[in-house]
Amino acid sequence: MATLRTPDPNPGWLSELALQETRSRVPMLYVEAIPVRVADTGSIEHVGLLLRGSATGEMSRSFVSGRVFYGESVREALMRNLEKDLGPAAFPRLPVSTVPFSVAEYLPVPGVSPLHDPRQHAVALTYVVPVVGECDPRQDALELTWLTPQEAIDPSIAAELDGGRAHLLRQALAYTESLG
Amino acid sequence: MATLRTPDPNPGWLSELALQETRSRVPMLYVEAIPVRVADTGSIEHVGLLLRGSATGEMSRSFVSGRVFYGESVREALMRNLEKDLGPAAFPRLPVSTVPFSVAEYLPVPGVSPLHDPRQHAVALTYVVPVVGECDPRQDALELTWLTPQEAIDPSIAAELDGGRAHLLRQALAYTESLG
Amino acid sequence: MATLRTPDPNPGWLSELALQETRSRVPMLYVEAIPVRVADTGSIEHVGLLLRGSATGEMSRSFVSGRVFYGESVREALMRNLEKDLGPAAFPRLPVSTVPFSVAEYLPVPGVSPLHDPRQHAVALTYVVPVVGECDPRQDALELTWLTPQEAIDPSIAAELDGGRAHLLRQALAYTESLG
Amino acid sequence: MATLRTPDPNPGWLSELALQETRSRVPMLYVEAIPVRVADTGSIEHVGLLLRGSATGEMSRSFVSGRVFYGESVREALMRNLEKDLGPAAFPRLPVSTVPFSVAEYLPVPGVSPLHDPRQHAVALTYVVPVVGECDPRQDALELTWLTPQEAIDPSIAAELDGGRAHLLRQALAYTESLG
Repeated sequence: MATLRTPDPNPGWLSELALQETRSRVPMLYVEAIPVRVADTGSIEHVGLLLRGSATGEMSRSFVSGRVFYGESVREALMRNLEKDLGPAAFPRLPVSTVPFSVAEYLPVPGVSPLHDPRQHAVALTYVVPVVGECDPRQDALELTWLTPQEAIDPSIAAELDGGRAHLLRQALAYTESLG
Repeated sequence: MATLRTPDPNPGWLSELALQETRSRVPMLYVEAIPVRVADTGSIEHVGLLLRGSATGEMSRSFVSGRVFYGESVREALMRNLEKDLGPAAFPRLPVSTVPFSVAEYLPVPGVSPLHDPRQHAVALTYVVPVVGECDPRQDALELTWLTPQEAIDPSIAAELDGGRAHLLRQALAYTESLG
Repeated sequence: MATLRTPDPNPGWLSELALQETRSRVPMLYVEAIPVRVADTGSIEHVGLLLRGSATGEMSRSFVSGRVFYGESVREALMRNLEKDLGPAAFPRLPVSTVPFSVAEYLPVPGVSPLHDPRQHAVALTYVVPVVGECDPRQDALELTWLTPQEAIDPSIAAELDGGRAHLLRQALAYTESLG
Repeated sequence: MATLRTPDPNPGWLSELALQETRSRVPMLYVEAIPVRVADTGSIEHVGLLLRGSATGEMSRSFVSGRVFYGESVREALMRNLEKDLGPAAFPRLPVSTVPFSVAEYLPVPGVSPLHDPRQHAVALTYVVPVVGECDPRQDALELTWLTPQEAIDPSIAAELDGGRAHLLRQALAYTESLG
């Protein structure tokens, strides 16, 4: 996505400058997906967490996440970001409705809300997405770790989850009745 | 399920007499599933309707539907009824949460609510369930017809839907943004 | 509700014997409401817990809860049980949709699921219901205690919540983004 | 909101130029609320539609709607826009959860999706909001009309609903079981 052709094949793409300017003006719309492995009954068996090197060089864990581009539908943005973060053979099962289980509000100032993103005010529509294929993390993600719900809410993992996402994970596990 | 062995292998099963008596006393808990074929994006392409011969010999259309048995979980009841109505090779993708898109209330007296069941007061937890395998209708169902959302809401189909289920179908299609 | 008049003014009422028999046959449909005090923005400020003397004489905490009667709608059952447990001046604000935030499954055998009811297999449609008036607990409830979300999830309170309802409370607080 | 003071008391406000530029770059996040009058049981009795003069001078109908400002929470945006469109004495009852009943996607190109906004790509989190006080439409709205659900879905009204919002209204009425 680094080279801009004419006519622009990817209208959602913005120059770094335009993106920075936009981020200072309006809340940015994101989609976020928590990848899961499910049993035949739909119960969650494992939660997938991406291990990433953050901008400051520290390791942190995160979910599938990315902007909704201009002109792109929420479903298209979900598909694109799942493929970007999990590779082309993950075979995600997208939800039948775009109603999210949570509207995640990331504010630039820490401490205002449980979720925090120093770069911007972001609002993410969040989904729990079963994946059945092979996941091959791309871009900046080093690996995808599958944890049981019980392992995933361990305080040591919560501490590694980026931007307060342990809060979002607890919401997802409550919504899917995955905690005993 | 017609013969009762000792010990009862199917504790949810009730004699006709006990079932009739129970139906006169309390609302009966059901699960109901609208089978769908979906695109990779999760959008509904086709809706599956079961063609059934009703007790009075007329043809009517319906969804996957059945009681939740004593001691059975909602997920187990969904699995069992999907297999009962669609066969063992339908490969339904059960939802990650048991929160239904609608709580369908069937009252024994017609005209009180949009949904009606002359046999009983039934309350059904309703779900939209993508199926990816081959469907082989069983028991009393003659065939499964796949219709586009637009075809499915045609008045001629609505008139054939049993117990006012055209109402439920419209709710499902609204929930999944399947109507233009 | 102890005397049965002719014609029965309360068709949902069952004799102890009939109720016991029914409870051994099918899952019983309940509604359950967590009363809350909310800010103008809809955020939860306090959660209401009922203090009850249990059958065994111990004190336990619970939510508004009760059966859906034969012929009664889910909305009517919610209204009736809110008035039964909170009195006639509580002024509950019932939800615009009957879709619950959780389908709570109480099994008679402990340990199978997080929720447990030794008397029966009960399935409760659960709601978070703001109340704005004065609450005057009735029947077997001794008092209604208002706690902040943070106080309500304290392990000491969780231990007092009947039938594993701490699980349900955490689901409600996750759904309403009430935990920091 | 027309004059910008120093320091800016309203950081979400953007100059016309900055707003126009931003609208060409990213999807704009909106909240949208369908005001309703409800019975004690929560059932919808009337739906409120705002009558507006559109930019082209035609009359059109709409819901409460507005941008989420930079740094503003979804709940704050809902409150602000309800007061902007219905006045200070409407006493809206905001939902306990920010999970919308629908994610409404307005695309700038007509015909791509049921919803359309020629000015921009907008994504609106949509809610059904009971109001109990007096509504006094402000700004560009001429009046608020209360219609029964049955009246509101009449084709003549649907034709007046701006940007394809008849689609959204049908979703809201399906979600709240307001159609017979």
